[in-house]
Amino acid sequence: MKKLWGGRFTLSAEEWVDEFGASISFDKELVNEDIEGSMAHAAMLEQCGIIHSEEAGKIREGLGLLKEKAKNDELEFSAKYEDIHLNLERMLTELIGSAGGKLHTARSRNDQVATDMHLYLREQVKELILLIAEFQETVAGRASEHVETIMPGYTHLQRAQPISFAHHLLAYFWMLERDRQRFEEMLKRINKNPLGAGALAGTTFPIDRSCTAALLGFEGMYENSLDAVSDRDFILEFMSAASIMMMHLSRFAEEIILWSSQEFQFIELSDTFSTGSSIMPQKKNPDMAELIRGKTGRVYGNLVGLLTVLKGLPLAYNKDMQEDKEGMFDTVKTLKGSLRIFSGMVGTMTVKTSNMHSSVTKDFSNATELADYLAAKGVPFREAHEIVGKLVLTCIQRSCYLADLPLEAFQDAHPLFEHDIYEALDPNTAVERRNSVGGTGFIEVRAQLVKAEAILEEVKKRAT
Amino acid sequence: MKKLWGGRFTLSAEEWVDEFGASISFDKELVNEDIEGSMAHAAMLEQCGIIHSEEAGKIREGLGLLKEKAKNDELEFSAKYEDIHLNLERMLTELIGSAGGKLHTARSRNDQVATDMHLYLREQVKELILLIAEFQETVAGRASEHVETIMPGYTHLQRAQPISFAHHLLAYFWMLERDRQRFEEMLKRINKNPLGAGALAGTTFPIDRSCTAALLGFEGMYENSLDAVSDRDFILEFMSAASIMMMHLSRFAEEIILWSSQEFQFIELSDTFSTGSSIMPQKKNPDMAELIRGKTGRVYGNLVGLLTVLKGLPLAYNKDMQEDKEGMFDTVKTLKGSLRIFSGMVGTMTVKTSNMHSSVTKDFSNATELADYLAAKGVPFREAHEIVGKLVLTCIQRSCYLADLPLEAFQDAHPLFEHDIYEALDPNTAVERRNSVGGTGFIEVRAQLVKAEAILEEVKKRAT
Amino acid sequence: MKKLWGGRFTLSAEEWVDEFGASISFDKELVNEDIEGSMAHAAMLEQCGIIHSEEAGKIREGLGLLKEKAKNDELEFSAKYEDIHLNLERMLTELIGSAGGKLHTARSRNDQVATDMHLYLREQVKELILLIAEFQETVAGRASEHVETIMPGYTHLQRAQPISFAHHLLAYFWMLERDRQRFEEMLKRINKNPLGAGALAGTTFPIDRSCTAALLGFEGMYENSLDAVSDRDFILEFMSAASIMMMHLSRFAEEIILWSSQEFQFIELSDTFSTGSSIMPQKKNPDMAELIRGKTGRVYGNLVGLLTVLKGLPLAYNKDMQEDKEGMFDTVKTLKGSLRIFSGMVGTMTVKTSNMHSSVTKDFSNATELADYLAAKGVPFREAHEIVGKLVLTCIQRSCYLADLPLEAFQDAHPLFEHDIYEALDPNTAVERRNSVGGTGFIEVRAQLVKAEAILEEVKKRAT
Amino acid sequence: MKKLWGGRFTLSAEEWVDEFGASISFDKELVNEDIEGSMAHAAMLEQCGIIHSEEAGKIREGLGLLKEKAKNDELEFSAKYEDIHLNLERMLTELIGSAGGKLHTARSRNDQVATDMHLYLREQVKELILLIAEFQETVAGRASEHVETIMPGYTHLQRAQPISFAHHLLAYFWMLERDRQRFEEMLKRINKNPLGAGALAGTTFPIDRSCTAALLGFEGMYENSLDAVSDRDFILEFMSAASIMMMHLSRFAEEIILWSSQEFQFIELSDTFSTGSSIMPQKKNPDMAELIRGKTGRVYGNLVGLLTVLKGLPLAYNKDMQEDKEGMFDTVKTLKGSLRIFSGMVGTMTVKTSNMHSSVTKDFSNATELADYLAAKGVPFREAHEIVGKLVLTCIQRSCYLADLPLEAFQDAHPLFEHDIYEALDPNTAVERRNSVGGTGFIEVRAQLVKAEAILEEVKKRAT
Repeated sequence: MKKLWGGRFTLSAEEWVDEFGASISFDKELVNEDIEGSMAHAAMLEQCGIIHSEEAGKIREGLGLLKEKAKNDELEFSAKYEDIHLNLERMLTELIGSAGGKLHTARSRNDQVATDMHLYLREQVKELILLIAEFQETVAGRASEHVETIMPGYTHLQRAQPISFAHHLLAYFWMLERDRQRFEEMLKRINKNPLGAGALAGTTFPIDRSCTAALLGFEGMYENSLDAVSDRDFILEFMSAASIMMMHLSRFAEEIILWSSQEFQFIELSDTFSTGSSIMPQKKNPDMAELIRGKTGRVYGNLVGLLTVLKGLPLAYNKDMQEDKEGMFDTVKTLKGSLRIFSGMVGTMTVKTSNMHSSVTKDFSNATELADYLAAKGVPFREAHEIVGKLVLTCIQRSCYLADLPLEAFQDAHPLFEHDIYEALDPNTAVERRNSVGGTGFIEVRAQLVKAEAILEEVKKRAT
Repeated sequence: MKKLWGGRFTLSAEEWVDEFGASISFDKELVNEDIEGSMAHAAMLEQCGIIHSEEAGKIREGLGLLKEKAKNDELEFSAKYEDIHLNLERMLTELIGSAGGKLHTARSRNDQVATDMHLYLREQVKELILLIAEFQETVAGRASEHVETIMPGYTHLQRAQPISFAHHLLAYFWMLERDRQRFEEMLKRINKNPLGAGALAGTTFPIDRSCTAALLGFEGMYENSLDAVSDRDFILEFMSAASIMMMHLSRFAEEIILWSSQEFQFIELSDTFSTGSSIMPQKKNPDMAELIRGKTGRVYGNLVGLLTVLKGLPLAYNKDMQEDKEGMFDTVKTLKGSLRIFSGMVGTMTVKTSNMHSSVTKDFSNATELADYLAAKGVPFREAHEIVGKLVLTCIQRSCYLADLPLEAFQDAHPLFEHDIYEALDPNTAVERRNSVGGTGFIEVRAQLVKAEAILEEVKKRAT
Repeated sequence: MKKLWGGRFTLSAEEWVDEFGASISFDKELVNEDIEGSMAHAAMLEQCGIIHSEEAGKIREGLGLLKEKAKNDELEFSAKYEDIHLNLERMLTELIGSAGGKLHTARSRNDQVATDMHLYLREQVKELILLIAEFQETVAGRASEHVETIMPGYTHLQRAQPISFAHHLLAYFWMLERDRQRFEEMLKRINKNPLGAGALAGTTFPIDRSCTAALLGFEGMYENSLDAVSDRDFILEFMSAASIMMMHLSRFAEEIILWSSQEFQFIELSDTFSTGSSIMPQKKNPDMAELIRGKTGRVYGNLVGLLTVLKGLPLAYNKDMQEDKEGMFDTVKTLKGSLRIFSGMVGTMTVKTSNMHSSVTKDFSNATELADYLAAKGVPFREAHEIVGKLVLTCIQRSCYLADLPLEAFQDAHPLFEHDIYEALDPNTAVERRNSVGGTGFIEVRAQLVKAEAILEEVKKRAT
Repeated sequence: MKKLWGGRFTLSAEEWVDEFGASISFDKELVNEDIEGSMAHAAMLEQCGIIHSEEAGKIREGLGLLKEKAKNDELEFSAKYEDIHLNLERMLTELIGSAGGKLHTARSRNDQVATDMHLYLREQVKELILLIAEFQETVAGRASEHVETIMPGYTHLQRAQPISFAHHLLAYFWMLERDRQRFEEMLKRINKNPLGAGALAGTTFPIDRSCTAALLGFEGMYENSLDAVSDRDFILEFMSAASIMMMHLSRFAEEIILWSSQEFQFIELSDTFSTGSSIMPQKKNPDMAELIRGKTGRVYGNLVGLLTVLKGLPLAYNKDMQEDKEGMFDTVKTLKGSLRIFSGMVGTMTVKTSNMHSSVTKDFSNATELADYLAAKGVPFREAHEIVGKLVLTCIQRSCYLADLPLEAFQDAHPLFEHDIYEALDPNTAVERRNSVGGTGFIEVRAQLVKAEAILEEVKKRAT
């Protein structure tokens, strides 16, 4: 078949070069967006008197048929026609004849592909916003069951201070909240109309870009046609936020993996979200958490890939930019899958509250209480800190914990210690009393939950 | 000297390990933020009755002295005291005695360093927003001089269609506009108070986090103490936006370099913003543009670095996170320098308008006009496209350009061609008539300039 | 269907989790390697008396049948069986019954998949080595046609000194030579036998790893079973070398794109390796060069992806490592395609020698000759440099080039200038005389070609 | 002060632009290499009769003086003179007058800086090779103490099979061995002479590049002058190998951190290599391991940075390439520090052998033994695997471990179980019997140690 741009050429391009240059194997993902964009373009051309109503009608009918076929997975694409745009154009021309050729009036593949990408990413980001909210809901739900479940809080993976398990879970709620915010804010930059920019310079046809914007649900237009076809910021911004979100999930995954180990035994994953070993029958592996932690690499890599592609490119469209798609599709797929899996995994895991609790009774994570005790009585904190350090050392030498020391040992260390020190050392008390705003104290954690629920209410209201 | 946390240890750490672990060589950049944070913390401790007014007075006085010394660059930091926090604490204690030790009540280095970072980045991002606006102003200013300067527009670095040079410059205006928007939006996430989160769990002292928030100009607080000390999203978000901005600058730089070449000769950089060669006296190198293009790598690298650091880290603080600083400082410095240099470079370059114009008269960048001409007369675009392809081929064989062909040649190709085709082929007409919204037509470019100026007015109003 | 590792579980895993965790959609690429590895393992088990000859015979037969089917693309894989290993195992068991289950004796999926990856990458790297050599041959071939073709040599994209076009092309020959070297050197690390490492600790069965090594063509074995299953260095090393090679290709692509522009017009790509525009009929775009330049991003991204995956993973196998495959496959495919396309593109491009030559007669790229002329007569180079700078300035003011100045103008600048200065200024002379080793002088360029051909001879000898 | 390249310019460059473009603040690190390169260049110029002996003598003397001053840290560099080359040149000219200007004959900053970089990296890589070997020695030394120390081996961070702690440590030995190999192999590409390439095209002066190569210890020369000044592969190759090595260290660091946790308690770091908390006196944080894990990000980032810089750069030198230095210096510093710290940390850590051992007696990591037991008696492995899965489930229901089950329980599961099953279940036996090559069996681990020592012997022999 003759190439659409073949008039200028005397040699026919060999198939293997075509294959290398073709994007249809992946940009067919945009089939619906491409049809949708063409429908809006045709409607606008008709409305502005650029094509006849009869032609417009035929185009509408033809595109409708293609849409139907796409739905039923009946379209057969070919690398001979390079990309989704030319594949559909050829199909349309086969269906409706030369009227199909009129659809390309006042449009170029450069603004067409930009339009497809914007439409695609807008829908995906909207779905992601809801998936994030769903996961937040799961996290908040599990947190609400464990406000008074005490576990060790860690810094440097060393036990630091006892905390509420709900508090720990809710830290992820707020990370996800920022993720969702970022996705919401970028929508205003994604949801802009590039259609009408032509190849790079706009067009001499009397088109109406606000008309296609309205038909396609765009809230605004690119102000500059060169920018409209050269811009891939919206994908980079998406990939950046995606990378940050995957980083969050990788941290949560790391903790799920630690907590599932025989050494921690803080949780047990449901069978659905873990797998066995082909050689070691006793294993119950947190495979899903590991896989998501691993998939962080892929999302980071996609970001680096597109940043590299765009570095140093002169305006306007360059073929390099065809490389924007696979990474975007892969990132979308990875995020959606990871959120769904994570939500299921956290929603069904068993929390071993007694293991968590017994941990904090056999360590020094209550040492800060001692220092705070003295500081509250006026001892400069640095001095208090040093006194406690020595008491810990005493315990290690005696193979005991702080609460096992007799009162005299405390009073030898500092005369301000009194009997109520034992209450302060109780992990439950230690957690309960940390009621500074955002702290792990039960009252504060409940206040966090109230805020979390209000946020989710708000999301739901907007979504409906 | 005894380590502040040395009570627990029996061996003294060797100096070279200290050196490796110390951050003072770079976190001294935070000296003002650290003092500011301490002042607010002390004021709050006093207000909440946690320390006495007398102690608070001493602390205030001591910190004031340190601030003064910092201003005069008189502070001597040492790796023995690890970081900016311990260095300042020691200095304060030397100045005011044991009251200095009280400053650490209800505070940990974990929330302290987070506070410093938030304060630092807030100020830097605010400065960057203004620097971007200044650069936008330069770009718009140069554009306003060149609305009717015609140059070739490129795709694939092939001449595609003639455009207005102002239009080309304004494409960068809109890229920068998105950059500025992103920096503005992230401010709400940067400008949050982590102070009061303690080491990870909040505190039992009756602190008032809204008080420190108000004193430090924060608009809100972290809702969860674990999140407050573990979160570095705000730096990642900054680095992502920085990477996108550097990508924009790298594209602009690439064009500056191309335009400065003997082959293009579209501009000449001022001597201030170019350099010579040590061996080739005739060279006038666009060094600054190259360097900025190169510095894109550093900013991408900083982003990848921090994404890597945070991947898979369990909560809450881990020492890995000390690696968040150098990349942030370097990114800030690179962005500020690049914006200033670029603004100067663009503001002072000489535009060789006649070279630009003569380019478009000796090429085929008016070929689209032919196709549009036919399409406007009802020929399906694809057919028109093919006809024009053959006319271009004819020209190449005859070594001439389209406007050189006699009318018969056009009419042989298609009977609908008439004498007005020569007007359509004139590059000036070609540009002038592209008045679709956002197009390169003069009217539309002037409309863009009006929007650009309104935006800059708005920024200025807000800045004052 | 029951999961192979399902004995331990009470719940059946839901399909969508399976889908997320399954790798069969991409690791089916390893079907031949997996069968080959199993054949060697079975032969070894038989030879060591671990399974009976009868069983071994059945396994051999079954695997042979599967190999045949794989060749004819008749195998149907399913995500229900996770990966290529379990898919094939199930098929084998269906074919030959319980003897199939014996194949897993003394083997784990961990060492099995490592074996597959090593076998796969070994073959791919060997193919790449030949593809690189083929491309080098094309480059050297084109260079041999253009030893005396003079073109401007650039630094900072400013014309610096005239050079031989062959010399410029050969710079890429030597880059590719380093690429080939790196791929050859890594083979020794790729071509090592991990089989026999079991899940992580080796096995109690009396296996013979040197037997499987010999059967599979491995030159050595992993010395430590934990390392054997945890190591992915060989892929990272491949990806690093691939990234460097793509960087080289991106530089060559950039130059192809520049040279194809209307501004340079140094080459014309053949129609096979360029494409047209859907809207601008005159365009002949260097699409393939742009696409390869763009694909650099993908290869960098794959490297970053795997580096991220492996960061901070504890020993031994973790599910994260399943993410090693897609990036590797994609990198291999990208490199092979890019090399083939590039070789065709360079092999068929038309070199516009007269354009190249006329460039160097209308610029200042011969200025260094002046400085060298003086320096050769004893003027300190720095002084000579300054004198020439002034002469260039004189020319610019007079709108002429250096060779256009009268002898007096030279002698006014420095009395040591004599009439032979005009010969020195001739670009041909300037190139011809640069015969320092590795210089652009014709004699030296021919010497380079001789070395290049000797290298390619050597590669061919080894390949046959 | 007048710029060295200022003859051509009419405006003086403003200081802040100078500052941005100057590299002296970091390339002063190359002061010794620059002097060394100049000495060789001067000697060669003299030997080839290009400069007089008297001039050469002055230059030699002047450079000797500068070298001495550099050693005593007495040189004062200034951003006014851009970089190390011009700074030194100016100092030399001040010392010896116009003869200093002759040093630049037949040399450009482009080949000069390349020479400096090659010399620098060659020495650093040689040092790194020894540092790696030292660390390998530490690892092998600790391993030799713990051949029979049994610990759990992990996959998916789940206990999988008991292994020898020596075996685990030695896995890192072999990773480091590959690291060392890579650094050794790249030396041949680093240690090549670019000097004599001039700005890009070689020179007309009758220089002798083999003379400078010999004087500078280079083993070979760049064959192409364009390549010589454009190539930064050697730094990328270094950074790639550095990234892989940091990945290894990050994995080891992760394990050190896990093992130091209260949950694992497998090791205790010496006080020298751990730190305390400012607020929690009981903490003993594995700070150094965390910091090294974090520094992985910086090294990955440096690699990405330079890959980005070089992407798409046309030949030959471009100012972008000035960005090659800081990342290289930082990577060298990071690697050297990390290796030294890690060696000290591993060399001084206390191994809690009894904790390790007691772990493996209270888990199911001996389950594979059961499956292998049956498989050795002819039960197909897959069937055996399933039987064992059920036995593990039985144990979990009865809250016991496998060795606690009565013989009947085993025989109910499969009649082939006999009393020797209890021996097979003993972790010590399980480890001891894994004597496949590279396995964790004691004999095999000792064999590994012998190989490791032979390798280190060889390194030492070569180093002396």
